[in-house]
Parts: sequence; C-alpha cells; structure tokens
Amino acid sequence: MHFASDNWAGAHPKIAENLTRHAGGFASAYGTGDLDRSVHQTFNTIFEREVAVFFVGTGTAANSLGQAAMARPGGITFAHREAHMIADEAGAPSFFTGGARVLPLDGATGRIDIANLKAAMNGFPPGHVHAGQPMSVSITQSTESGTIYELAEIAAISAVCKDNGLPLHMDGARFANALVSLGCTPAEMTWKEGVDILSFGGTKNGCWCAEALVFMNPEQAKDMPYIRMRSAQNFSKSRFIAAQFEAYFADGLWLETAAHANAMAAELAKLIGASKELRLAWQPRANEVFAIMKKQTSAKLQSSGAAFYDWFTPHAEKGLLEEDETITRFVTSFATTPEDISRFGDLIA
Amino acid sequence: MHFASDNWAGAHPKIAENLTRHAGGFASAYGTGDLDRSVHQTFNTIFEREVAVFFVGTGTAANSLGQAAMARPGGITFAHREAHMIADEAGAPSFFTGGARVLPLDGATGRIDIANLKAAMNGFPPGHVHAGQPMSVSITQSTESGTIYELAEIAAISAVCKDNGLPLHMDGARFANALVSLGCTPAEMTWKEGVDILSFGGTKNGCWCAEALVFMNPEQAKDMPYIRMRSAQNFSKSRFIAAQFEAYFADGLWLETAAHANAMAAELAKLIGASKELRLAWQPRANEVFAIMKKQTSAKLQSSGAAFYDWFTPHAEKGLLEEDETITRFVTSFATTPEDISRFGDLIA
Amino acid sequence: MHFASDNWAGAHPKIAENLTRHAGGFASAYGTGDLDRSVHQTFNTIFEREVAVFFVGTGTAANSLGQAAMARPGGITFAHREAHMIADEAGAPSFFTGGARVLPLDGATGRIDIANLKAAMNGFPPGHVHAGQPMSVSITQSTESGTIYELAEIAAISAVCKDNGLPLHMDGARFANALVSLGCTPAEMTWKEGVDILSFGGTKNGCWCAEALVFMNPEQAKDMPYIRMRSAQNFSKSRFIAAQFEAYFADGLWLETAAHANAMAAELAKLIGASKELRLAWQPRANEVFAIMKKQTSAKLQSSGAAFYDWFTPHAEKGLLEEDETITRFVTSFATTPEDISRFGDLIA
Amino acid sequence: MHFASDNWAGAHPKIAENLTRHAGGFASAYGTGDLDRSVHQTFNTIFEREVAVFFVGTGTAANSLGQAAMARPGGITFAHREAHMIADEAGAPSFFTGGARVLPLDGATGRIDIANLKAAMNGFPPGHVHAGQPMSVSITQSTESGTIYELAEIAAISAVCKDNGLPLHMDGARFANALVSLGCTPAEMTWKEGVDILSFGGTKNGCWCAEALVFMNPEQAKDMPYIRMRSAQNFSKSRFIAAQFEAYFADGLWLETAAHANAMAAELAKLIGASKELRLAWQPRANEVFAIMKKQTSAKLQSSGAAFYDWFTPHAEKGLLEEDETITRFVTSFATTPEDISRFGDLIA
Repeated sequence: MHFASDNWAGAHPKIAENLTRHAGGFASAYGTGDLDRSVHQTFNTIFEREVAVFFVGTGTAANSLGQAAMARPGGITFAHREAHMIADEAGAPSFFTGGARVLPLDGATGRIDIANLKAAMNGFPPGHVHAGQPMSVSITQSTESGTIYELAEIAAISAVCKDNGLPLHMDGARFANALVSLGCTPAEMTWKEGVDILSFGGTKNGCWCAEALVFMNPEQAKDMPYIRMRSAQNFSKSRFIAAQFEAYFADGLWLETAAHANAMAAELAKLIGASKELRLAWQPRANEVFAIMKKQTSAKLQSSGAAFYDWFTPHAEKGLLEEDETITRFVTSFATTPEDISRFGDLIA
Repeated sequence: MHFASDNWAGAHPKIAENLTRHAGGFASAYGTGDLDRSVHQTFNTIFEREVAVFFVGTGTAANSLGQAAMARPGGITFAHREAHMIADEAGAPSFFTGGARVLPLDGATGRIDIANLKAAMNGFPPGHVHAGQPMSVSITQSTESGTIYELAEIAAISAVCKDNGLPLHMDGARFANALVSLGCTPAEMTWKEGVDILSFGGTKNGCWCAEALVFMNPEQAKDMPYIRMRSAQNFSKSRFIAAQFEAYFADGLWLETAAHANAMAAELAKLIGASKELRLAWQPRANEVFAIMKKQTSAKLQSSGAAFYDWFTPHAEKGLLEEDETITRFVTSFATTPEDISRFGDLIA
Repeated sequence: MHFASDNWAGAHPKIAENLTRHAGGFASAYGTGDLDRSVHQTFNTIFEREVAVFFVGTGTAANSLGQAAMARPGGITFAHREAHMIADEAGAPSFFTGGARVLPLDGATGRIDIANLKAAMNGFPPGHVHAGQPMSVSITQSTESGTIYELAEIAAISAVCKDNGLPLHMDGARFANALVSLGCTPAEMTWKEGVDILSFGGTKNGCWCAEALVFMNPEQAKDMPYIRMRSAQNFSKSRFIAAQFEAYFADGLWLETAAHANAMAAELAKLIGASKELRLAWQPRANEVFAIMKKQTSAKLQSSGAAFYDWFTPHAEKGLLEEDETITRFVTSFATTPEDISRFGDLIA
Repeated sequence: MHFASDNWAGAHPKIAENLTRHAGGFASAYGTGDLDRSVHQTFNTIFEREVAVFFVGTGTAANSLGQAAMARPGGITFAHREAHMIADEAGAPSFFTGGARVLPLDGATGRIDIANLKAAMNGFPPGHVHAGQPMSVSITQSTESGTIYELAEIAAISAVCKDNGLPLHMDGARFANALVSLGCTPAEMTWKEGVDILSFGGTKNGCWCAEALVFMNPEQAKDMPYIRMRSAQNFSKSRFIAAQFEAYFADGLWLETAAHANAMAAELAKLIGASKELRLAWQPRANEVFAIMKKQTSAKLQSSGAAFYDWFTPHAEKGLLEEDETITRFVTSFATTPEDISRFGDLIA
C-alpha cells in the first residue's frame, strides 16, 4: 500500500521504453539536437503559443532558476506558507537569487488568501529600501494540500501581480494533476489567466527525471541559457530528458497518468470518508489525500503495511484536530494500483 | 564519422536496459532506497575504503559542489588554464562558492606545471587579505588535452597541497579513460596519491546522466547533503542515477567502454600520424586526439562528413602551428565504431 | 522635537573632536595602525577577555558578516519577527550567507518567546535536508521595541543554543542603552550568559559611523578578515573608525550618552503616561518609547512639529489597539534635549 | 619619508573641520537629508548633467556594487591584470555579482591593450553558453601603475564596448589625480568619451572615507538603492560622507590636493631619474612613481626611514629588471611634504 509520495514510483513503462529507443546514435549535445527541438515544438503546441522551454533536472531547479530569472536585489517573492520553495528546498530560491526571500502567506488548504497577499504587499511600499522590494508571486498548482486554484482565483492573483508590476510564477510539479482536475487546457490554466513562468513537472507523474522551466514570453528568458549553465543544470545528453517528455506527451500519456492518479485519490478519499476512524481533512482535488485520525490509528495502519506520512498540521487548519489526533498525507500516482486502494479500504473499514 | 564529443553518444545498451529493469516498483526517494545504498557500497569497494558519495546531475555540478564543500571566503582554486571549471562552466564554480575564483595556470598539454603552481601560490601569502586565500587545487584526469597525469605527478601536486594545507580535487569527467590508460586502481589514482575529492563522471563513458561527487574522507562531507539540496541537485527518483551506475560497474562495463574509447583514439592517432596532411599535436593517452592540419583541410574533412571541432590553440602550445593551420579535436567514446575510424582513415590517407 | 530616530543626530562633539585630532600624520592602513590596535585592546578590557574585533561601516554589515561567519548551507537563523535582520536589511543576511534564511519568531514586546524558539527548532530535525538546518539564534539588545532581555532570559536562550550546537548572536545596535538599563557589565550581558558573537553599535549612540563585530572566541573569527575584505567592509583609513571608538570609550562617554538617552526616554514615557490622549504601549526600558493614540492625534502632533513615526503594529501586540488608533515610535539619543521633551509634554498635556 | 600609500594619510584639515561643523543638529537619515541632496547636486554640476550618485564606504564597494548593477549571469568583465578588482579585493566583484568573473588583460604600464581586449572578447562568441557572456569593461584612471589613459584611448575602448553592447566602468579611486594630469573636465574624462559608470574616490585624495558610485544615466541605476541596501552599504548617518564631499569640492579643494600629490610625484620622479642607483620604471603621470633598483638598495633605503613597497613586477614589464633588481612603488598624496621629497632626494643622491 504505497502512498508515501508520488516520487517513490519509478518510471512509466512507455517512458522507460522511449529512453531505450533513443539510447543509440549520435546527437549534438546540450539541447541542440533534433529530439530536443522536436519536444520544444510540442511544448509550443500544448501551450498554443511560442514558449521558451528549458529542461532542468529537479523541481527545485525549475523553481529556483525561475526565481533567478525574475530576481531583483532585495527581492521578495510571495508564496503560500506550505510552498515547496519555502518548506522543502533548503533555501535554494534564496541561494540562486543572491538572497531574495520567499515570504510565507497563509490561506486555507494550501491556497494563498488574496487578502493576505494584498496586505503583505502593502508592507513593501515603493522606495522603502530597508524592507526590500516585491519581485514575484508564486502559486502551486495543484497545491501542496492536494487542492486546486480555480481559474478565477488564478486570475484574481494575476490581477494583483499586474497592479504591482510583478510576474506570476506557477510551481507545476503536479501540473497535469491540476489540469485534468479542472478539465481545462494548459493555455487556460497559465498564460490566459496571467501566469508568466511555469515550473513544468514530469517526474512526479511518470518520468524518471524530467522538469522544464517554461516562459510564456520568450523575451523574458533571454538570460536563461546563462542562468542555467551557471547553475549546473545544462545537461550534456539533454536528449535523455527530451526522450522522457516525448513519450510523456505522446498520445496524451501525461493526462492519462494524471487522471489515473487523481481517480485513485478520489477512490481513497471515498473510503476514508466512509470510515469510522478516519475522516478527510478536506476534499482532495488532485492526487493527494489528507486524513485525520488518532495518532495510534496512524501508527497501527503504518505497521500494517500502509506507507504514508504523518504530516505537519497546516497553519490555517490547526483547529481541525483534537489533541490525540494527527493529520496524515496519502499520495497516489500513475503507479498506484486499485488493489492497493482496496486493501487499504479493507484495513480501515 | 562521429568525433565531435563523447557526449554526442546516447547511453550504452546495458545502461538503458538497467533503467528499464528498475522502472517498476516503489522505493524511498532522495537517495535513501536500497539501490542507492547498494551502489554507494560499490563505490566503497571500488575505492577500497569507505567514501562519501553524492549523486548529481552534471559534471559542472560535481565540480561546483565540490568547490562549495571546500569553499573559503576570498578563496582561490588553482587549476590548469583549460580546466572545464575555467573554460566551460560559465562561472559556476564562482557562483556556487560565493565568489571564489579559479586561477588559470599554464602547463604543457593540459597539465599543471608544478613550478607554475608554486609560483602562483606564492602570490597569496598568508594574511595578505587583499589577494584572497588559497582554497584548493584541482587537476583534470584525463586532461582536457587527452593526456594523463602520471601517478608521480599527482603525488607531486598533492605534496604542494599538503604543504599549504589545501585539499586536492580531481575532475574525473573522464576518470575511467585515465584509469585504463594508466592501468592502475581507482585507489591508486586518487587517495593513495593524495586526492581528497573526486568528480566521478559516468556520462561521457556510456551513461545518460550519472555523475557523483566522492569524498575520500567522509567527515569532510558533513555539509554536503545541505549543499546539494540548496543547489537543486538532490534528485527525488535518485535511483535513476543509481541504476545507471549499477550497470556501469557491473562486470567491469565501465572499464570496457573506456578501454574501447581509448583504443579507438589510439587507432585514430595512428592513422593521423601516418597521414601526410595531418599530424598529431601531441601523443594522446585517453580518448581525445588533437591533430594539426591546414584550415582548408579541416573544412574539407568536415564537409566530407567527419564531425569534429576546430579547437582553440592551447596557450602553452601556440608555437606548434603555422599561420594557415588549425588545431582540431577528435573524441571517441564507447559508441565509436571501427568503421568510423577506418572511413576517416581512408579520407585522410 | 526630534524623536524620529537615534540616527537623525550627528556625532557627539567629543567624537568629532577626536577625528580632528587624528586627522594628521601617517598610519599604516587597513586596521594595522597603532590607534586601531589600541582600540582593539580597549575592547579586550571592556569585555574582560581577549576578543576578536572587526570594524565595519554599518549595523547591517555587522549583522550580515556575523551571519556569514556562522553560515551553514541551507542555514536557518532564528530571530524575533521584528529583528532588524528581518525587517530592515533588504535581505542582506541572506545575501551574505549564500541564501541562509532568518526565521521570524513571535514574542511579546520584541523578545523571542522561548517556547516559540523551541517549537520552531523542532521543525528542523537533524537530517531532514529539505527543511534546511539550524545555524544560529540572534537576539537584539535592547530590542526593536525598546525593551530588554533580562540576563536570565539570555541564559535561557543560550541554553537552547547549546543544546542544539548553535552559536548565539546579539545584535547590539543599541548595546549601550541596554547595558546601562540593566546596570551590568558588557561581559555579563554577553559571553557570561553564552553570547558568542556581538554586533557592537556605536553609531546610534553618538558616533558618525562606528560599528564592530566582536567574537568572544577569537578562533571562531579566523575567516573573518577574508569575509570582511570580500564584503567590501575593509576600510583603508580604518583609523577614522578607531578614532571614533577611542573617544566613545574614553572616560565612559558611551555609558553617559546611553544613560542620557534612556533618561530622556523615561521622562517622555512619564509624560505620555500622564497624558489623557496618549498611553504607553508598554513600559520602555531603553531609548525607544511606543505610544498608542488616535490616528488624528498622531497627525496633529506631527503637524505641530513633533518628529516621530507611526509604526507598524507588532504581531504580538495587535490586540492593544482600537481601530481608530495607531502605535507610534519615539526615539531619544545623546542629542535629545530636555527642552524637546518638555515642549512635547506641553503639547500633549 | 611616507611613500607607502595614499591611504596612510589621514584627512585633510578642511575635511575634518567640515565634519565637525556638521556634527550637530538633526537630519533625516540614509541619504535623504538636505546636505546629501546638496552634494548630489554638486555632482550634477561637476559632471555637467544629471547623474545618479550613491555614497558607499570603500572603493571595493563602489567597484563591486557597480559590477552588481551591470551583472549578467555567467558574466565576464574585462579589466587590466593589475586592476584593483582583480588583485586587491579578495574576489569581492565575483561575490557581489553571483559569480561573474573579471578577466585579466595585459597591456603596458597598467593600461588595457586594445588588441588584447578585442582578442579576449572574441573568446566569448554570442550563444557559446559554456564560456559565459561579456558583461562590462573596466578601466582604472589613473591606473595602478600611476599612468593615464588619454581621452582618445578611453574613446577607443568605449567604441569596443558600444560594438559589443557593453557598459564601460571606470575605477576612479584616483580620479582627481588623473583629471588634473590630463587637464580636462570630469565630463570629458567620463561620459563624453563613453564611460557609463564611475567609482568616484575621495578617500585617497584627502577624505577619511568618501566614495561614490556615479551613474551617468540615472535610469541604469534604478535597482541601486536595493543593491546598496542588500550590500550593507547604506549609511544611516550618510551626511558624514556628504560633509566630506562638501568640503572636498568646495573651492576646488579636490583638484588642489590632487595637483599637489601629482607635483610631489613629479618631483620625486625627477630625483629618481637623476639618481645613479635608481631609475624610473616608466614615466609617472599621476601620484604613483615606480622605480627600479637593486634589491639591497631598496632594503637600505627602507631601513633608512623611507616607507615604500617592493612591488610585484607587472606581467607586461618583466623584461625591465635584472635578476638582482626589484621594482618599487612610491605614492604621494595631499599630505606629502616637500621636505619628505628632498630628504629622500638627499638619500639617493
């Protein structure tokens, strides 16, 4: 019963197969080969415009190099308190930007509360040099809480960005999960609502190691080749990333794997909702389910072979728990099996 | 006729196959899984001691994070003028170390001249704060010129390091090529001669993307987990690197591919040496061959389908060329075929 | 009525006079002259041990270079939410440390609540590389709220540091004001209670520009000469700082100016406490007084010639204010006159 | 006989006096006071256009923050091998720019050889991401060798900058000495010949600590307030710098002190030229004189009370010396007395 994380899975068979298919032959290095160019073109098609695409090796790299591309001295990026950039990257965004800071904002179930965003931004009036200066806003889609920003919510945040002359970044480590959940197009979930820069993740959704930084306006990316090289993210045999993405996009595999993961999460949520000992912390929208249960129940389930994590209690949801309870996180992926779900269902019934 | 670079090849079939073999199943992430641990153990075996191993995604990452681990404020690393860290990493070593500098030293055919090393180090007397302070010495094995440091030469440089309290780093992007050329053990080529930190490259020798930073004394690596995380080089599905290394080391594949590449280079050198229009710039020792020819000959060969580069003339070898001549670089790899070599031989005969 | 800030004053006449006295003659540069050495000796005397002293130009420099000396990759420094390093340095501590972060902690009237400190530190368990690693704790004495850490409170925070192997830093931009308020010795307020590194400020208390970074254990300062040089804080005519400090310490001038500033603040507080329209936000202990009043009262007083600032409401004190009220900050200094105080008293009577 | 450095002197009496004059009273902090604004206006007048001026504390700060303002990822600044930024700042320019590098160029007597500049720039063709990208050119006026770039030479270098879309920086630590030597206006020596950014030094020419970064086009300085704050160079009692500059510029004091220093150097050069045991390394043009003599002569002169330094032999002038000879540096300043010169003359006669 593997619910620890979507990065505990390996690679989808079609991804692995395509790597093998491309293993032979010679191709010019550092992203200049035919396969790389072809995949760049696929990104253009998917996003319905010419975008600038930069392959990198990790989600942290995509986020941090994106920050570097937007960097301002004394810069402040606004993000949800649970954002990966704040909680899980050991300060990489500050490292790659010469000390810019990511300011934590609260908001229910992983989403920035727009009133909090506006209030925080007011703390940095133009010219008050001591405080630093706003530099960007970053949202995570789907969120670290397994929820989703509705298109209108993205638009509202984007409006604040425009009012303040700031770019809007989306951490799309689980982009596909959000996309199939909303049932919209990549263009609708990004630039049509004002997203400027996207960390596009493939790794959690079936790739080995395939992340891309996507600039909706290529002219904003003019320094990126040098930022990426200086940051040790320019892969010589770049086609190993391109080959993953090629298979990822072929015949809509990426949407299929994401839809599967989401469906597994929904099924899991249904079983948890029906359980007497567990309850849903909130309704999941993508491939992460958060459940509340007694600490001893969590321990018992884990010792019974269910792999999941006791999670920290999000700041905005502290009131949800009784003292002897814990909040727990379950993550599904392309590799989650219905058998695992039903075994877990039996366990908690 | 593919001699442009050893990173124009893809992956060795056994590497690709092993990735497929490990694509299924679940494993804990970020290098904590069984396969990662097993490969770490293989490194211990290969180096005949307990080493600390950190997988990273690029050779630039291995070099730069190694520098970060040795970083001193105002630091100076001494390296050959043609070192990858100086010529090919867009300043990454300075970026990752808060502004440490890599000082170029001259020396024939890619190797640091030890007199130059000592003289340069004298430019940084203890306490002369304005100049900065020595921080490390870095050698490249095999060198960017396709030559090799003899073990005694490594020992001599190491002695200078010890006298000055400096760690010795080896950029082993082509470690295996040097190893089979010298016919010694990894231990003999590293810590037994005083090497402290090694950038161990697998990518150029048959992997897709497998590099490791190896600390001969694990206690010097205590900050590395955080350095790597902060540097966006902590791969979630780290087993995709481990799987490559597993196949790389199995049954001595790595030595076999390196020996093949070196043999192809030797054969190429023989043909060039026998040619009337081309001559060897110097005797190759690993998998890179440098040849001097008329500029128009180079152009003609390239238009005839031979992929190689006109190279810059190394500082120490400026006297070798006539005005209408160019120096050219040919690189062989696991994927070089005898047919390509003989076709090229026909071309220049 | 000048209460805007203690850095709106110029220099104490004796400081200015001593600069003139030392303006002639030649002295070796960069802190190696006789006067510099003599002032270093005075620091030893004042702190009752051999300390390592580094003159720098600004309080931000002292704080940031101190952070750099303690830096760890992925590092986290714990400080009060209102600490200068968080609120007023545009991210300099993150810039100078390669992306270390200063984590805001809450606590009443500008002082870290020790329960919050422990709880926050628990968020960084050893080995959880994604979160980063604790690096230091920093307290401000006197605080940004004009209050004081009692010696026992410093000891308690220091104990948490020792338990976690962390150095304790004190931002002493208003060190002298705290010292005379507590009536203890510099040694008692620092290393005797476990402070390791001190930003020692002279500027706010009567100097033009005289700050020092003081290491209680000189061996922890071995990289500081290079950190300072690399950070552009190594002053060639360093004696201009030494001369200020010489006068500052001579005949206890520094304690006299701090005592004066504190006395002026106490008098101001008394008048505010007696006023019908204003009330003290909390009891001042040093040279800053925070008062609550109606917004229109604040505006009226300022238009009547009283220079002070409407302040942001500290997070821990949000409950103190009614909606139409504002919190205001008044700062006194060596240059504050009893006349200014009494004129203000008349205004609010 | 004080010829060690122009930073061994203290402050000119008129500078010291003006500091005293401004020590009283209150003024808004961080460069927003009346005096600061007035001095900014003086800069406009001196440069015959509206410039953006930022006071900083050291020449290294001016140079490094200027670099930061021009920074590009993977950036390369071209400077003479002996430039302060390369030889004397412990890597500060690389630190403040996220790892940009200052590339050393050779050229006779401290001046960049324009052929070398062009050749070096050709090593960084557009799009060759591994090498990095050109970022700026920096010249030192007067040079570290006490020579001067003629206006036509500045124009020629500026033309190369324009051809390559690069800004031109001038390290003017000894700006005034060059100015009076050329007998031109500040505008002529800077923007009229294409200089974009200037490190304007006051410290070596009679101030205690007064340096400024001057942007000829204020729109290029829009991030500078934040760069300066983040770099710990925003002085609270900024008027202590303003007061120095006020006196520095009043009645042409700065030109007078520079002219005096230059005249003293010329006199010294005349005596050295007439000596049998010493000879001029090259003709001085500003306030530094380089002399060649036997090593034992140098030792004897120093033990006779003459303070000067045995210097390193510049790369381009290695041929000038016999084996038992040394090159020595003598620096004059506003404080150099004719008596010191004539005493030294007697010594070497």
